[in-house]
Amino acid sequence: MPENLANTVDNSPIVIGDEEIFEAHMGGKISVDLKAPLDSQRALSIAYTPGVAQVSRAIAADHTLAARYTWAHRLVAVVSDGTSVLGLGDLGPSASLPVMEGKAALFKTFAGLDSIPIVLDTKDPDEIVETLVRLRPSFGAVNLEDISAPRCFEIERRVIEALDCPVMHDDQHGTAIVALAALMGAAKVLGRDISSLRVVVSGAGAAGVACANILMSVGISEIIVLDSQGVLHPERTDMNDVKTELAQRTNPGGRTGGLAEALVGADVFLGASGGVVPEELIASMNPGGVVFALSNPDPEIHPELAAKYAAVVATGRSDFPNQINNVLAFPGVFRGALDAGAERITEEMKLAAAEAIYSVVADDLAPERVVPSPLDPRVEPAVAAAVAAAAGSSS
Amino acid sequence: MPENLANTVDNSPIVIGDEEIFEAHMGGKISVDLKAPLDSQRALSIAYTPGVAQVSRAIAADHTLAARYTWAHRLVAVVSDGTSVLGLGDLGPSASLPVMEGKAALFKTFAGLDSIPIVLDTKDPDEIVETLVRLRPSFGAVNLEDISAPRCFEIERRVIEALDCPVMHDDQHGTAIVALAALMGAAKVLGRDISSLRVVVSGAGAAGVACANILMSVGISEIIVLDSQGVLHPERTDMNDVKTELAQRTNPGGRTGGLAEALVGADVFLGASGGVVPEELIASMNPGGVVFALSNPDPEIHPELAAKYAAVVATGRSDFPNQINNVLAFPGVFRGALDAGAERITEEMKLAAAEAIYSVVADDLAPERVVPSPLDPRVEPAVAAAVAAAAGSSS
Repeated sequence: MPENLANTVDNSPIVIGDEEIFEAHMGGKISVDLKAPLDSQRALSIAYTPGVAQVSRAIAADHTLAARYTWAHRLVAVVSDGTSVLGLGDLGPSASLPVMEGKAALFKTFAGLDSIPIVLDTKDPDEIVETLVRLRPSFGAVNLEDISAPRCFEIERRVIEALDCPVMHDDQHGTAIVALAALMGAAKVLGRDISSLRVVVSGAGAAGVACANILMSVGISEIIVLDSQGVLHPERTDMNDVKTELAQRTNPGGRTGGLAEALVGADVFLGASGGVVPEELIASMNPGGVVFALSNPDPEIHPELAAKYAAVVATGRSDFPNQINNVLAFPGVFRGALDAGAERITEEMKLAAAEAIYSVVADDLAPERVVPSPLDPRVEPAVAAAVAAAAGSSS
Repeated sequence: MPENLANTVDNSPIVIGDEEIFEAHMGGKISVDLKAPLDSQRALSIAYTPGVAQVSRAIAADHTLAARYTWAHRLVAVVSDGTSVLGLGDLGPSASLPVMEGKAALFKTFAGLDSIPIVLDTKDPDEIVETLVRLRPSFGAVNLEDISAPRCFEIERRVIEALDCPVMHDDQHGTAIVALAALMGAAKVLGRDISSLRVVVSGAGAAGVACANILMSVGISEIIVLDSQGVLHPERTDMNDVKTELAQRTNPGGRTGGLAEALVGADVFLGASGGVVPEELIASMNPGGVVFALSNPDPEIHPELAAKYAAVVATGRSDFPNQINNVLAFPGVFRGALDAGAERITEEMKLAAAEAIYSVVADDLAPERVVPSPLDPRVEPAVAAAVAAAAGSSS
């Protein structure tokens, strides 16, 4: 199936009826299971009293042994307050649970990592941070998920500061890592130096800000970011702190206005806005460029329309080529960080993840294959190894 | 194996070397698994985006649907602050994790329930209650575990008040339920009306207080409770609130002194103290009585010594007959409460659980079989059904 997808522009998305979807969610998608059965008095005496007392005593005497003799050290807490569920907005913690269960299923499938959904009945950043600090001995890493911007920036920063374990808001950095990998592939296909590309990022939420930052970190200087009010520039007074800071590091040409003004002469359109971009604006870009229309389920522009102007087109959808899907990044990122015993997910580790994703298709690039399929089994091991190596070299 | 245990007094406990115990704990004892594999683009599209959006939307529109389409509604949070781990004291949250994982393994094995260890890096009752309130959408029930007395009484009461789901501190009520079931069996073996028994409870911690309360609730009036300072009686001024209240409802004869004074003329010794009771004190009890020496791993008196005087002897250990083990109660109690959709675990439900455990051996009682084996597969279904029925009739 990945090959088929990669070789055809298939206009027909996988059609799945509601009945099948809801049936598959009955009672949830994950379960807790035993690694060895408790089928005898002896097994009980080992896993529970009296045997377990030996293990508890040993950990009490040397806390580092918890990493060896419990599941927590390699357990990922998938944490959400439900304020930005998929593209659907503030649906609340209960409604976010199916997404967090899905994430746990992906962690297990792609990286062999156990994870548990933790959905919080509070939106207060102080309370979210405080709660995770109290829960700290229960897990070994935190995947923040579906937390609304700009709260997500402060919450991620503070949780990272407060916890001595890997923490990542996937909506920011998972997306950014895969977008960078895809742009590395696209640049190679176009025969361009990635740092020479003129990029427009539409959307200054979690994904847009992280994409802008990671692209700048690989040397792209001509980058313009827009929110719903237009181009971020330092003279604007209606921006939150994150946008204000970003405005000072982007838009070197000092442009003002909206998407029309921004896209003239651009090589790359990266949509992370949930909005729509009219065909005529894409037509105003430099010819033979790149369109990443990442909004889901409705890309900012239909990929077939975009392909009339751009040489490389990617979306977030599985039914078009070049799917920019976070699952290419987060399983390997957490796996690599945990394998390395890292206490932080550094910028070097994120760049290493992007390079690893790119490396999987580097010898086999095509306009419709600038990133691997989300189901490509080579990706997670490559990402995990690269991230672990980067963790080791930066520590 | 249960039959063998039930028919012999086997002095040789199961000997398990440390190496085997630690080996069995490598990486923890539980894992999170998928209920259906994510092995195709179609499966991904159902369990994650875009399919999952339908489910999130549905739950956002009707929060009660979370019970149907997520795992949380039937997920038991096994919660501890590590302040009273087994009989080992305040080992801290990390060292309590192997016990909580063991509990999760028991929940799955005996009741088919998923559960997750939640160990908290705080001992403050306010913070524990607050944390569980914030986590509420993540689970469907709370098993409090290994929380020290008297804090456990306040914490359990406040968590019950704060959450609209089943909550039980197993060290209190699991023990009490099984002790009551065993005493029902013992009374029948002795041909005595349970309410006529004169009971001495040694220990006024979590288990002792709960045992005293449940025994009074079935009509036992002659009951004396002791802590490390001796018999609880209203004139003492060195007692916490729970003991002060208990002193007003127990000890109708107004005894003072220690275990020696309490045991004269007693029919039942119930040890939940972690201490030792000398043989001569057991000898001072009414002949042909009952000794439940529940401390683990060292019973208050060796069961063979106790059997010189008592007609029925029980311990917490698997290597002697009549093992009073919480696993006879908690899996079925939570399963029954969740099956019934109960928001509380009521006293009626606990009594129903004790009666159900008793009922399993009622037609097959013997001095060395007043409770079923912890591995008896008839117990959990009987308990769950009885608890669910009691939940239904009391709501």
